[in-house]
Amino acid sequence: MRIFNFSAGPAVLPEPVLQQAAAEMLDWRGSGMSVMEMSHRGKEFISIADKAESSLRTLLAIPPEYKVLFLQGGAIGENAIVPMNLLQGRTTADFVNTGEWSKKSIKEARKYCTVHIAASSEDKDFTYVPDQSAWKLSPDPAYVHVCTNETIAGLEYQWTPDTGNIPLVADMSSNILSRPVDVAKYGVIYGGAQKNMGPAGLTLVIVRADLLDRALPITPSAFHWKEQSAADSMFNTPPTYAVYIAGLVFEWLLAQGGLAVIEQKNIEKSTLLYDYLDHSSFYRSSVRREDRSRMNVTFRLADEAQDEAFLKGAVQRGMVQLKGHRAVGGIRASIYNAMPLEGVRRLVEYMREFEARHG
Amino acid sequence: MRIFNFSAGPAVLPEPVLQQAAAEMLDWRGSGMSVMEMSHRGKEFISIADKAESSLRTLLAIPPEYKVLFLQGGAIGENAIVPMNLLQGRTTADFVNTGEWSKKSIKEARKYCTVHIAASSEDKDFTYVPDQSAWKLSPDPAYVHVCTNETIAGLEYQWTPDTGNIPLVADMSSNILSRPVDVAKYGVIYGGAQKNMGPAGLTLVIVRADLLDRALPITPSAFHWKEQSAADSMFNTPPTYAVYIAGLVFEWLLAQGGLAVIEQKNIEKSTLLYDYLDHSSFYRSSVRREDRSRMNVTFRLADEAQDEAFLKGAVQRGMVQLKGHRAVGGIRASIYNAMPLEGVRRLVEYMREFEARHG
Repeated sequence: MRIFNFSAGPAVLPEPVLQQAAAEMLDWRGSGMSVMEMSHRGKEFISIADKAESSLRTLLAIPPEYKVLFLQGGAIGENAIVPMNLLQGRTTADFVNTGEWSKKSIKEARKYCTVHIAASSEDKDFTYVPDQSAWKLSPDPAYVHVCTNETIAGLEYQWTPDTGNIPLVADMSSNILSRPVDVAKYGVIYGGAQKNMGPAGLTLVIVRADLLDRALPITPSAFHWKEQSAADSMFNTPPTYAVYIAGLVFEWLLAQGGLAVIEQKNIEKSTLLYDYLDHSSFYRSSVRREDRSRMNVTFRLADEAQDEAFLKGAVQRGMVQLKGHRAVGGIRASIYNAMPLEGVRRLVEYMREFEARHG
Repeated sequence: MRIFNFSAGPAVLPEPVLQQAAAEMLDWRGSGMSVMEMSHRGKEFISIADKAESSLRTLLAIPPEYKVLFLQGGAIGENAIVPMNLLQGRTTADFVNTGEWSKKSIKEARKYCTVHIAASSEDKDFTYVPDQSAWKLSPDPAYVHVCTNETIAGLEYQWTPDTGNIPLVADMSSNILSRPVDVAKYGVIYGGAQKNMGPAGLTLVIVRADLLDRALPITPSAFHWKEQSAADSMFNTPPTYAVYIAGLVFEWLLAQGGLAVIEQKNIEKSTLLYDYLDHSSFYRSSVRREDRSRMNVTFRLADEAQDEAFLKGAVQRGMVQLKGHRAVGGIRASIYNAMPLEGVRRLVEYMREFEARHG
């Protein structure tokens, strides 16, 4: 029996994708091989990778002047790889600090440049996204970095920053493909696949072609965007099976009607939870209302001592991974694209039941 | 129908592993989740990763003072990551150049240090492994790097170098787990998984603990061996599904009787092919006899113009990916652990038939 998995990542995948992967495991469409066994240079895998890229381009309406790379290393790897690829000729990069994932980016970037904090919400425990009017950019940064969704506090940009001619770089690991995005507003979009795209081990980079000439000489070839772009992400062997699964997820998203439809579903799911939270005095959300994440809904019980009983009862009802991140505690429901509405309904129903019993 | 896949990598996997992966795809042992969906910090996945590591330790008899890391980036990523992790306090690294994979390591290392070529077989088109008596090490290198199996020419060390107190670093991507290895002779062993271990996207690093203190400050945390070792390879999200499949491959190897038994099978398979090559004047192998690879058997037809017909006939008989690497041409049969003896028998039978028809 399948359970409802509220993990922050790796996370729930669409059941039809898993069914197809299981059915094709020993013989992909008459090839006599598993996708895992295919040479990345063979015509079968090249067709899989091409299809994945074109589906993604359709979903996000990626303009032709942007390159799509399927790499490795995850977002934390990319936290170091981004500055390596963008710092040629400049010594400073600007960051907006909205939480733990921003802080990781900042820590890695400091190995390669001066980091300027343009804005931060650390003063209020990362419970809000600083308005752009409060950002103070440095005179000539290589780029401005944001994390569009912070999974730990449960914070999400509901607007797109405007940094003019300075490239805007976004870690979108945890909300990519959950809504339409105007890619042209960004210089670079990157993210690990394990929340909304597929298995851990695949890293997506979408980069404007004119930014490919800014790498430092120390950039490893396997993570050098220009070299990877010239080789269609096959400078080294890509994580082939993860690309295949991500391609199936992209097709599933297209079959649902694309990102405008997906966004409506995500609004519906998150509203169901937030509405309940707002009408309860037993549970509380500490994130500023307009910055609440649709992907990671965090909340606390009136009495923290009841957390354990709450989590245990959830598991008994087939709902797992609801524990908040160890850095902040509390409860966290990660409700990515593949979480069915039914899972959220069950959670709210259980919260109501728990409140009635313990409130 | 399953075919015989002679790809150099990603490559054939054991059929029972694929069957188990298919059966467990939607619900891993009653967890209600796919392994792909599991939080890497949940007890289910931690049990999978622990089992994979302990199986690998048993297979290779890894001494306790060695750390086992499951990372990302492949061997080409590691070509840059190795020098980053080992160069603190030293400016030179020594390399033995035996082919294309050695050359890639050298190219990446030059970004971080002076590369000294201790020996090379480039003078004879990489058809032999230079004897250690001919190696000329530099005065104080950070390490000596070898590639124990070159997939393109089809060259393999049949002996273990002795570099005394200087750490020996080996790229074993393409022959790891094909035979027993005396790990204690090495400072670092690394490799991409996609030949003998599992899906592309997983990178294995086995490192002696005393070498963990030599990283350059520019080393990205995701690829920093000491940070990853302290976090049990979970400093960032590991490629969880690839770790799971590799763990199943390790169990399959143990069930066969371990690496001594596997080595005998690999000797049997490669001998079948080389014996036939040596008794034919139609096909020829150009690698020095004592350095021939058991994993990648390369050969040429008497008349190159017949290559295409040879490859086409092979495909018609269910044998694919026999084309030599584009850098050298000819024919290449990659016969990793998971290639059944039957596949090699069929290939020799076809070679005999083709020779009779065209010889």
